[in-house]
Amino acid sequence: MLTLSKKAQAMPASPIRKLVPYADAAKKRGVKVYHLNIGQPDIESSPQALEAVKKADLKVIEYSNSAGNLSYREGLVKYYASVGINIEVADLIVTSSGTEAVQFALAVTCDPGDEVIVMEPFYTNYNAFAVQNDVTLVPISCEIKEGFKLPAIEEFEKHITPKTKGILICNPGNPTGTLYTKEALIQLGEIAKKHGLYIYSDEVYREFCYTEEPHYSCMHIPGLEENVILLDSVSKRYSLCGVRIGAIVSKNKEVMKGVMKYAQARLCSPSYGQIAAEGALSTPKSYFDAVKAEYIERRNVLVNGLNNIPGVFSPMPMGAFYTIAELPVDDADKFAQWLLEEFSYEGQTVMVAPAAGFYGTKGKGTNQVRMAYVLKVEDLKNALKCLEEALKVYPGRTNK
Amino acid sequence: MLTLSKKAQAMPASPIRKLVPYADAAKKRGVKVYHLNIGQPDIESSPQALEAVKKADLKVIEYSNSAGNLSYREGLVKYYASVGINIEVADLIVTSSGTEAVQFALAVTCDPGDEVIVMEPFYTNYNAFAVQNDVTLVPISCEIKEGFKLPAIEEFEKHITPKTKGILICNPGNPTGTLYTKEALIQLGEIAKKHGLYIYSDEVYREFCYTEEPHYSCMHIPGLEENVILLDSVSKRYSLCGVRIGAIVSKNKEVMKGVMKYAQARLCSPSYGQIAAEGALSTPKSYFDAVKAEYIERRNVLVNGLNNIPGVFSPMPMGAFYTIAELPVDDADKFAQWLLEEFSYEGQTVMVAPAAGFYGTKGKGTNQVRMAYVLKVEDLKNALKCLEEALKVYPGRTNK
Repeated sequence: MLTLSKKAQAMPASPIRKLVPYADAAKKRGVKVYHLNIGQPDIESSPQALEAVKKADLKVIEYSNSAGNLSYREGLVKYYASVGINIEVADLIVTSSGTEAVQFALAVTCDPGDEVIVMEPFYTNYNAFAVQNDVTLVPISCEIKEGFKLPAIEEFEKHITPKTKGILICNPGNPTGTLYTKEALIQLGEIAKKHGLYIYSDEVYREFCYTEEPHYSCMHIPGLEENVILLDSVSKRYSLCGVRIGAIVSKNKEVMKGVMKYAQARLCSPSYGQIAAEGALSTPKSYFDAVKAEYIERRNVLVNGLNNIPGVFSPMPMGAFYTIAELPVDDADKFAQWLLEEFSYEGQTVMVAPAAGFYGTKGKGTNQVRMAYVLKVEDLKNALKCLEEALKVYPGRTNK
Repeated sequence: MLTLSKKAQAMPASPIRKLVPYADAAKKRGVKVYHLNIGQPDIESSPQALEAVKKADLKVIEYSNSAGNLSYREGLVKYYASVGINIEVADLIVTSSGTEAVQFALAVTCDPGDEVIVMEPFYTNYNAFAVQNDVTLVPISCEIKEGFKLPAIEEFEKHITPKTKGILICNPGNPTGTLYTKEALIQLGEIAKKHGLYIYSDEVYREFCYTEEPHYSCMHIPGLEENVILLDSVSKRYSLCGVRIGAIVSKNKEVMKGVMKYAQARLCSPSYGQIAAEGALSTPKSYFDAVKAEYIERRNVLVNGLNNIPGVFSPMPMGAFYTIAELPVDDADKFAQWLLEEFSYEGQTVMVAPAAGFYGTKGKGTNQVRMAYVLKVEDLKNALKCLEEALKVYPGRTNK
């Protein structure tokens, strides 16, 4: 029978993409749409990355080492040392994107039916990776009023079962922008140690931290070498989303042996992407300083602007380039669609990502949206104005 | 418990990579090793592909469309039309390599425990993809004496069960170099139709056919639109193995909808790779003519040379750039290792891939090796000489 697999049927559709046809229709009507819905930065890619590709004088684009080009891996070891993560070349494998790093981590450690604890709201594609690997995501709710901080230890204890294989965190977080504290992570480490759990630590936004302190990674937690699997990507760090280069890092030799089998089966990561990523290792500090200053300004404009709109609340995110806002609306799904379908202010409107799709628990986040501050300050101000005017006239407005 | 998944444990190690440490040791001893073991061509990449990357003036390497850049997909539709495969843009999704195309096809159509029929010997990574997708590969043996031609219909009927989901073929074939005839494929199509099976048609070697007739694709079989899923890659066609760009093509709308969900979960294929692959679409016919002439010469030198060695037999492959040879040895695994560990002739030796790893049935192919004619004619002649001399002195030689 020419049927589809149960997994293909169960694979969730992206909550963000659902709205794309409405945005397209709005544009056709001549409405300008401010895209706060996706994490595609307008920041220019690291010039060192682009230059490295331009300069590469290859005659044959060959398969590369399944673990990644050795020179790039050696460079990465130095990069990690610069952020206080001390590893050897054998502790890391270059992946074809951060996505592949997450996929490898789950595939290598989880059997069908195993459970992985996640903080909700979480990156929606974790759902897809869970379906693909027959893993059950067990969400622990984080609260917007508390800035989505890591829940208390008791919450974790409540959710751990004999099937729990690990805890998947994203720090700094997409979609919340939350940065976990060192103290909270050390506590998390203790639970992992006590129950023999992996910590899958997605740190692709490491460079986007807006506190005075340096980023504290799970890789820094002493005594947790066997438990932590670091998932990484160059997509956001150097604005190289399209090169599809990431990394998986762990001091657990068995895990890395398992990952290597998966890496060999897919032969290798993209050659040009690896060249770009290796070039990006020489990106000067000034690039990051400028990018960070830009994001801090954007964040302040967006989040302060949101909190100045009556009935709207957003915590101040300390990392990444997202924030979740609570809106005075009946249903953020409907509202987001209405913004594109029915509303415009001076020929403009705004596209946001309804947050319900980022929650694992049904009914959560229905009056929340995720916004990415990946646009210029002027555009963010216009988008805020649209949102303010929209909330004045939206028929499903609550607490008027 | 910090254990590995059953899949990670079951993932087969590559039968080719096992020998790499021995090859490295031989090189350290100063022995020159002729690599006939892997399908990495020395052919220069399409200059149009390399040029396209050099000329690309990107400022931000963004995520691209999950289905692939539209301009590239439109170009691919024209490419397929040029080989008689008439499709629309919606019938194709660009993948991150041919590997991903196979993975998507199995994931989207097969449930755990489903069976997929393959002709053995087959591309070893099919084993890894089967493990990853909980699919059981059911091998049907092809015979070296018959040039590994497609088995009789009765053989297929015998192997079809209620769990059979499809038939996976590689045409032209890796590791055999076999090109299936139009007649045989039409018969295969009839079985697929009769039993409601998918045909997963891996055609990454399409451009490497050495008969007078053009390549006959399963996509050409009339009335089989819903059954055929074409798996493709630019790796071999333009000698672009490292760009990691492939495609999955089917007129089955449900299948393509399922594939799109998987494509969206991994966001997009590599940007630079897509630029190279799109550039490669303008590769002139003269490039392929030259490459084909080169391969035909190499094939003739290698296969005729093999058959001139007493006790050795290889069929004449009509496609790809591999051949399987039967050797007068006790165990090709041992022989291949011995070639690297103990043997050299005038400071040279040869590395071959033992064929047992390409078979699903235990005990098959133990006196066979796969060789890739990806070296220059002069090197192939030297490699043949090594092999001839080696067989004279190998302690495990049979039929002396």
